[in-house]
Amino acid sequence: MGTDASGAADGRIPVTVLGATGSVGQRLVSLLEEHPWFRIVRLTASERSAGRAYEDAARWVLPSPIPRGVRGTIVEVTEVAGDVPLVFSALDSSVAGPVEEDFARAGAMVVSNAKNHRMDTVVPLLVPEVNPEHLDLLAAQDYGGGIVTNPNCSTIGLTLALAPLHRAFGVRKVHVVTLQAVSGAGLPGVSSLQLLDNVIPFISGEEEKIEIETRKILGSVRGSEVVYADITVSAQCTRVPVVDGHTLCVSVALDGDPSMDEVRAAWADFAALPHTVGLPSAPERPVVYVEEPDAPQPRLHRLLGGGMACSVGRLRPCPLLGLKFVTVSHNTVRGAAGGTLLCAEMLVAQDRVAGVEAPTRP
Amino acid sequence: MGTDASGAADGRIPVTVLGATGSVGQRLVSLLEEHPWFRIVRLTASERSAGRAYEDAARWVLPSPIPRGVRGTIVEVTEVAGDVPLVFSALDSSVAGPVEEDFARAGAMVVSNAKNHRMDTVVPLLVPEVNPEHLDLLAAQDYGGGIVTNPNCSTIGLTLALAPLHRAFGVRKVHVVTLQAVSGAGLPGVSSLQLLDNVIPFISGEEEKIEIETRKILGSVRGSEVVYADITVSAQCTRVPVVDGHTLCVSVALDGDPSMDEVRAAWADFAALPHTVGLPSAPERPVVYVEEPDAPQPRLHRLLGGGMACSVGRLRPCPLLGLKFVTVSHNTVRGAAGGTLLCAEMLVAQDRVAGVEAPTRP
Amino acid sequence: MGTDASGAADGRIPVTVLGATGSVGQRLVSLLEEHPWFRIVRLTASERSAGRAYEDAARWVLPSPIPRGVRGTIVEVTEVAGDVPLVFSALDSSVAGPVEEDFARAGAMVVSNAKNHRMDTVVPLLVPEVNPEHLDLLAAQDYGGGIVTNPNCSTIGLTLALAPLHRAFGVRKVHVVTLQAVSGAGLPGVSSLQLLDNVIPFISGEEEKIEIETRKILGSVRGSEVVYADITVSAQCTRVPVVDGHTLCVSVALDGDPSMDEVRAAWADFAALPHTVGLPSAPERPVVYVEEPDAPQPRLHRLLGGGMACSVGRLRPCPLLGLKFVTVSHNTVRGAAGGTLLCAEMLVAQDRVAGVEAPTRP
Amino acid sequence: MGTDASGAADGRIPVTVLGATGSVGQRLVSLLEEHPWFRIVRLTASERSAGRAYEDAARWVLPSPIPRGVRGTIVEVTEVAGDVPLVFSALDSSVAGPVEEDFARAGAMVVSNAKNHRMDTVVPLLVPEVNPEHLDLLAAQDYGGGIVTNPNCSTIGLTLALAPLHRAFGVRKVHVVTLQAVSGAGLPGVSSLQLLDNVIPFISGEEEKIEIETRKILGSVRGSEVVYADITVSAQCTRVPVVDGHTLCVSVALDGDPSMDEVRAAWADFAALPHTVGLPSAPERPVVYVEEPDAPQPRLHRLLGGGMACSVGRLRPCPLLGLKFVTVSHNTVRGAAGGTLLCAEMLVAQDRVAGVEAPTRP
Repeated sequence: MGTDASGAADGRIPVTVLGATGSVGQRLVSLLEEHPWFRIVRLTASERSAGRAYEDAARWVLPSPIPRGVRGTIVEVTEVAGDVPLVFSALDSSVAGPVEEDFARAGAMVVSNAKNHRMDTVVPLLVPEVNPEHLDLLAAQDYGGGIVTNPNCSTIGLTLALAPLHRAFGVRKVHVVTLQAVSGAGLPGVSSLQLLDNVIPFISGEEEKIEIETRKILGSVRGSEVVYADITVSAQCTRVPVVDGHTLCVSVALDGDPSMDEVRAAWADFAALPHTVGLPSAPERPVVYVEEPDAPQPRLHRLLGGGMACSVGRLRPCPLLGLKFVTVSHNTVRGAAGGTLLCAEMLVAQDRVAGVEAPTRP
Repeated sequence: MGTDASGAADGRIPVTVLGATGSVGQRLVSLLEEHPWFRIVRLTASERSAGRAYEDAARWVLPSPIPRGVRGTIVEVTEVAGDVPLVFSALDSSVAGPVEEDFARAGAMVVSNAKNHRMDTVVPLLVPEVNPEHLDLLAAQDYGGGIVTNPNCSTIGLTLALAPLHRAFGVRKVHVVTLQAVSGAGLPGVSSLQLLDNVIPFISGEEEKIEIETRKILGSVRGSEVVYADITVSAQCTRVPVVDGHTLCVSVALDGDPSMDEVRAAWADFAALPHTVGLPSAPERPVVYVEEPDAPQPRLHRLLGGGMACSVGRLRPCPLLGLKFVTVSHNTVRGAAGGTLLCAEMLVAQDRVAGVEAPTRP
Repeated sequence: MGTDASGAADGRIPVTVLGATGSVGQRLVSLLEEHPWFRIVRLTASERSAGRAYEDAARWVLPSPIPRGVRGTIVEVTEVAGDVPLVFSALDSSVAGPVEEDFARAGAMVVSNAKNHRMDTVVPLLVPEVNPEHLDLLAAQDYGGGIVTNPNCSTIGLTLALAPLHRAFGVRKVHVVTLQAVSGAGLPGVSSLQLLDNVIPFISGEEEKIEIETRKILGSVRGSEVVYADITVSAQCTRVPVVDGHTLCVSVALDGDPSMDEVRAAWADFAALPHTVGLPSAPERPVVYVEEPDAPQPRLHRLLGGGMACSVGRLRPCPLLGLKFVTVSHNTVRGAAGGTLLCAEMLVAQDRVAGVEAPTRP
Repeated sequence: MGTDASGAADGRIPVTVLGATGSVGQRLVSLLEEHPWFRIVRLTASERSAGRAYEDAARWVLPSPIPRGVRGTIVEVTEVAGDVPLVFSALDSSVAGPVEEDFARAGAMVVSNAKNHRMDTVVPLLVPEVNPEHLDLLAAQDYGGGIVTNPNCSTIGLTLALAPLHRAFGVRKVHVVTLQAVSGAGLPGVSSLQLLDNVIPFISGEEEKIEIETRKILGSVRGSEVVYADITVSAQCTRVPVVDGHTLCVSVALDGDPSMDEVRAAWADFAALPHTVGLPSAPERPVVYVEEPDAPQPRLHRLLGGGMACSVGRLRPCPLLGLKFVTVSHNTVRGAAGGTLLCAEMLVAQDRVAGVEAPTRP
């Protein structure tokens, strides 16, 4: 399996990580360390970091140590080079747009965590458990390679929780208030002088992203475009003193007025393609209902399913919309690096990366 | 002015604080220290604390030192004694119910922060700026003295923000998600092992209180009862790692579809009785709109108006209900001790405390 | 290998956990879930919890879920029953003393995390990497079974860092200031109202424990007693808003005035028995020097070596004592449950548990 | 009293604040708002802020609102202009050095919070309660005006606590570990992603400053230079998740082996010039011993004496140096803006500012 651009062949698919020194990039590098399908052959960053060993260039913020295999890897400047078929983009949105296009035009399949191309008509905004059929949009791209995007960190958890309800009943209205962790803001991100003993009830652009991305992800593909789901979404976003894990307080109006038992059953029965087809990063159950009366909580539940599952709890009636509940998902694993990785795994499994063969599963 | 039950006359009205050693009791004692109208003559607590000097009995948690005047005051057990006309109750709800009735039957006007009597038909649930006319319910009480209650800490901020809108336009639907500070939970309250780097999306009984109390407070008095306001309220409550100050993310549906400018004008023009009649604890402006794009925030705005004002910000359209905004108010000042004090001041100003004359204002 | 008291034989040694519902008990249960040598056959707690399923009795505070195998295990009251050779005690010190003696007299080897017997003349205070020879004290116990204790959570990290220096040069004076995490205080422990935006510069009894336990652990066994090390230790202890991981600021005076390079070499060369003899919980390197100028930090380094290693950094000259450095170790893994487990593994490996054979290593 | 450079005379002394938009600058502006002696006539900042109204240029981080009087004040670029006799410098150390000299050469008395000139031979490093006689060094400056510096935020608390002991007994050795708040790092300062649930055991340059500044402040003036105190100081500095207030764990060796009662008496009897001569910002008691066993704590004691006092507690024997204790002081009030202000008041009271008369005290 796999083309090996670097010559050092262990059968795994060679990948490049763009923007590897930032916090999302670090998570990606960490998750790729022992990945059964992928092998890092190139790390890029801005000119300031280029030419330095990765361990010197990255200001490491994760609790696990820097993977040995990449400590000495010399970081390169972010520009097209060589012939790597699969590229992960953890670039900042201030630069991601044209750079990702360059790589796609050079033939690479770019899986991006940046917001720049998410709303492009022919770019899939992918949550592999929710809308894998959106990958059919790739046929309408004329890059040579392609671009697939991972949604906003809050939207992923929200759509994972909503998808089973949308499939089973139809979602009509969604009111969501987010309590977001700081790791999503990267470094330096939010100053501790601003956030300790405090809540910041504003995250630039976040409410708009949640309101529109949710409708694209839950929409359906017709020909070469997405028909957005007919759902009214209202979002309020806040930043709270939590390291990892976004908490969402959700109210929903569903078609057909299902009972709470039917709703719980819809979550429990949610069978998702990524686990079925054996993607290495797919959680066994993407949506897990937690029974404790005060669950889910970010510190206790963010690592469920290796950080890839969305936990849900506190389902109860909402006097306004019908039902309300709480979700927690890990914003830098599921909501960023891990989500991006799962997108790439789905692309490979569906043979959508040029020159790369899908690994045979055991 | 003022009857002096204790014999030590400085012209100020003698008051008793029930449950003086808890966190709300401490705030009350602190606020009463230099109060121009009131003078503490008795502090009570449970049998465990009775007989000890206040500074030994109270595990002080406030940043200002224990007031000198009460350090040596011997704490008494909480039971009716003497003839004090005005009683503040900071009792825990596990004991407050019958004790407050005992004091009321003994002739005292009891102003309570406990939840026990809030929903009693003839007991005013008072936010002095919002529903001072609810004090007319007192005429229907047959205690001898009387009971007036202060709402839940979250409800106060919510009703302060809603009242100007309800007066000007009519409020029909309210969706509120609270991000509540820990001081509301008292001591030991929430363990730091549970709350650090975490959010707890559940506070027992809180959502129900907000949903019903809001309707009583914004209701109107007809004869000897309150006609609840015809508003649908949905609340979701969370606890966040903040010391003081509740943050509320609010969505509202108003009658008549006012513009955002009209809504801001309603807040700006909100003239409230407490300041007009010169109550010492009344903030000049009970509702303050804060313009910064990321305001209000608990650490920056909880002390506005000496902790007695409700700050509002981020007014913007809500795709679901029409408008959304954020409020911050101080949960143990405005939301508990300060609110209780303001209720008492209003009672005195309206000559509703037997044997106590309203102070002449300068 | 292993006697199987319960009849359900998978070859692993059956163990009992006393005080299994508290926070240390939870960590123990969690670490024992997939332990290659041990298998839980009995969980005990106070009468309040007895008779309930473990998942109902324990208020779970760990980020990993409750192990499936024990969710339905009925918690029993803490008293001697049956014939289990190895007993872990996570009992509170208010009850641990006599209960642990009862079990030891009934023939069990008790490995305790409680403080009660730590200073007993014939009870080993064991850090397996540091003073395994102290287990010879067991011969002088007349319980039938035996008692071995795990030190205070701060002392373990301190003695791990000091032991290589004491072996290589001799430690004479130690000044240590601790910044301790809240998980060590258990539940409810420290209220979040006391600790948010705060430091509490006092932990009852902690300074005394560190000052004396360090001297016992670094002492030598002569006959049936320990000759305490001739080291002057001064400790100041504080509690900080950190979930897990104690940070220690240490200054030391060593014999012979070694260079900083020699000190680093002593740490790097520290070969410890637990890893050599293949104990499952032994970290490959018990003391890890971290080079970053602002390391070690509790959130980044507490999980080094699976939470069993002590990280050290910032070695530099001390104008007063000669050298200063910083250590971080995980207070509920290495400092409590994991440390206790390692003690038990050492006992088994040395054939010191009656009726239990040491597993053959692969 | 007072020259009025701006023509708008209310009798108060006109002052300039350099670097007014940063966090120390904000505190200064806040403290100067209603100052009885001083009146702000000019605010400066970097070119990026120059020309904007102060309320737009300053990203306000204090819980009290921006003072009305300066909201609309147009921020000017930091360079010598006009003829203001007294200048407060809250400049960043990257630019403060030459700029402060420029102002001093133009005739202004510059009172600086920056580190640049602290160690200059002829520049007083002033804690007005501790070493007011160091102002005699001004005579040896040849600027025309002069430069006086305020020490590092940690050093101020330390020297306030040590000065009474040094006067009464003589201090010989000091070991100090600091637990520092984030406000000292300014904005953006420490990222919340780095500090939440964490301790950072390193603050660049801080240990060196404490070790040397303490010796200068406690030294004596001989002719035109300071003879440094013969004290060995060892400092370890950490950053903790606290907003305001530095906590110091101190061990000291004193001459003459005084008893703990004698040490407490030395603190209690510490009569300091600033309060005696009636400086407006002088706390009544600069050192306050707090008796509670777990005091002092930053959240409870940082505002003692309006944030200008140093609280001390937990005096007890130290096995190594003789005595140990804990101090808390407010790092941005006493440790920065308030301390700078007190220095200026002392200069004025001693008639050391050219063209400015000392106010007559009531």
